[in-house]
Amino acid sequence: MKIVIAPDSFKESLTALEVANAIETGFKQIYPDAEYVKVPMADGGEGSVQSLVDATDGEFVKVQVTAPLGNQITGFLGISGDQQTAFIEMAAASGLHLVPLEQRNPLKTTSYGTGELIKKALDLGVKKILLGIGGSATNDGGMGMLQALGVSFKDCNGQEIGWGGGVLSQIDRISTENLDPRLTEVVFEVACDVNNPLCGTTGASAVFGPQKGATPAMVEELDNGLAHFARQVEQQLGIRIADKPGAGAAGGMGGGLLLLPNAQLKAGVQIIIDATKLAEHIEDADLVITGEGRMDAQSIAGKTPIGVARVAKRFNKPVIAIVGCLREDYQVVYQHGIDAVFPIIHNLGSLSETLAKGKDNLISSAENVARLLKLTLRA
Amino acid sequence: MKIVIAPDSFKESLTALEVANAIETGFKQIYPDAEYVKVPMADGGEGSVQSLVDATDGEFVKVQVTAPLGNQITGFLGISGDQQTAFIEMAAASGLHLVPLEQRNPLKTTSYGTGELIKKALDLGVKKILLGIGGSATNDGGMGMLQALGVSFKDCNGQEIGWGGGVLSQIDRISTENLDPRLTEVVFEVACDVNNPLCGTTGASAVFGPQKGATPAMVEELDNGLAHFARQVEQQLGIRIADKPGAGAAGGMGGGLLLLPNAQLKAGVQIIIDATKLAEHIEDADLVITGEGRMDAQSIAGKTPIGVARVAKRFNKPVIAIVGCLREDYQVVYQHGIDAVFPIIHNLGSLSETLAKGKDNLISSAENVARLLKLTLRA
Repeated sequence: MKIVIAPDSFKESLTALEVANAIETGFKQIYPDAEYVKVPMADGGEGSVQSLVDATDGEFVKVQVTAPLGNQITGFLGISGDQQTAFIEMAAASGLHLVPLEQRNPLKTTSYGTGELIKKALDLGVKKILLGIGGSATNDGGMGMLQALGVSFKDCNGQEIGWGGGVLSQIDRISTENLDPRLTEVVFEVACDVNNPLCGTTGASAVFGPQKGATPAMVEELDNGLAHFARQVEQQLGIRIADKPGAGAAGGMGGGLLLLPNAQLKAGVQIIIDATKLAEHIEDADLVITGEGRMDAQSIAGKTPIGVARVAKRFNKPVIAIVGCLREDYQVVYQHGIDAVFPIIHNLGSLSETLAKGKDNLISSAENVARLLKLTLRA
Repeated sequence: MKIVIAPDSFKESLTALEVANAIETGFKQIYPDAEYVKVPMADGGEGSVQSLVDATDGEFVKVQVTAPLGNQITGFLGISGDQQTAFIEMAAASGLHLVPLEQRNPLKTTSYGTGELIKKALDLGVKKILLGIGGSATNDGGMGMLQALGVSFKDCNGQEIGWGGGVLSQIDRISTENLDPRLTEVVFEVACDVNNPLCGTTGASAVFGPQKGATPAMVEELDNGLAHFARQVEQQLGIRIADKPGAGAAGGMGGGLLLLPNAQLKAGVQIIIDATKLAEHIEDADLVITGEGRMDAQSIAGKTPIGVARVAKRFNKPVIAIVGCLREDYQVVYQHGIDAVFPIIHNLGSLSETLAKGKDNLISSAENVARLLKLTLRA
């Protein structure tokens, strides 16, 4: 019997690989001789680089990068075991968690560090870059990222305009002349699970600006800045980004990335599914086990277990989810390929106690799922 | 497919019948055409009368009884649908919960009300009495119960000695001359899951006295009283109760009951298994589902699910437990006939929130167990 274990991480508790290991440990109590294939998964958000490094026997690479407020920090990227693919999380260089609460100001924050991570990937000679853009502190339309890769943004006095969403409105002249030419030689996939346009009431500034520290007045300034940015890009480069679905992701990073050759916005979980060759693993499996920290109705909107289940159902495989917890509204997942779901909480306790018991509870729950599977009933 | 659902109650949340109904509801989502037989179970403790009434289509009968401190209250007993068996919980007349915290004093409390419940059962003309003796407020050796049924206890002045553990030492003359003669005509089974002797360091007073309000000095007085009671019983009636296993149950009620003709101490869950004809239901079943509020290593010591599992394993039936929560040490249940266990907590919350969601979580968990059972794997 071949069992594919392809869970997401349990946030704040276990990496996807740790989750997969625990499920394997539990199952092996009952099916010691089954073939287990562990495929740590992610949805393009936090933990994606960890999962992809784990899934490909890859490694982490530390990189000196520019943090959102301009200071230098040590960021990271991942590189696959075969050295062919780089895994980048925007948050590792430009994440909101890198900016102290009282200093959060998207007029100032730059995505420059994410550009540096991309540059490092090119230096490493990869053929493919996978970039997750969640959790950013920025609202600069990806301008900082583009600057780090050689794009020039000058004001009407011919001066480089600097960093942050607050200077977008000063853009007068954009030049891609010095854009890193190696970008034309790589496949560049961007994990993007929102469809927000760049500007307007459903745009980057209005929807995501406030959580990054923007006041209502700042939201308006940022929105005007992105609109100006989009006009200049269209007029000078002939690239229309304003109304592209997903352009509003990560403070307009989704839009800025469209200036790069080859960059493609795709569903995050799909990128991970492709990168981990999940379908090949599942094709001849007998059972697929997935999981995530919390399953609810939102799980059908691009989260890992449903992505895994959809692949499994292409091959008609049973799919079991083992999850940290389960919201009342979860049952819609049955219509999206999940055959059965088991929450692992064994008894009530504080969140920290419960997280600390996560691994043991996961092993125990997986064993019981295996025990139940082993029962044969008269049908 | 025939499925027997035989759970205990989930204390403070759902009766055993409610648990069984919820499990059935969840299972029916997946197996609508299965034959479901619901057998509400208990272990002889709290909720046993409810379960037995539910299991036998019986009814509750209200009875005016004497509470532990002598006041009159409305107690109850249960009677089976065929009117042949009475179900009594000692706690319904002599329970600790009937005595306000600050008035708890086992020198004073009497088991008289339990005797009145037994008398009522005889009045109803039953052929069998099942008595559970958990949760009592008393430490009177069952003297009050015996008094209510006609036994006389006089002091050296020829006066009836009254009530409570504090007067046991005054017993000079015991007479069973007026003991209700109908007791010789009934089968009388007492659910008793402790082996404590009447007296000494593992006796009723030392082990259970403190939780009933006894100070160390009171424990000694109570222990001496029970020892005197046992000596008088042996000398005057020729019945040796002091070292009988279980005599120390319920403040010595286990010992006092040995003065009645026919009374037999038995394991609580065994009495319920017999009363509900569980074995007959299970004999031709395909699956047995049990459950309890909390499963842990203690579950193997006379609690319901293991009792149910032992019956099921006589017929080689698979047994699944669905439980309110699960302590870390639960895994020993696998060696006692439970094939798989599933806790129902879906997410963290307060105890009251979690109890309030008990029914929904139980339905959901049962459905997922059924979903998993329905999956067929290449073995």
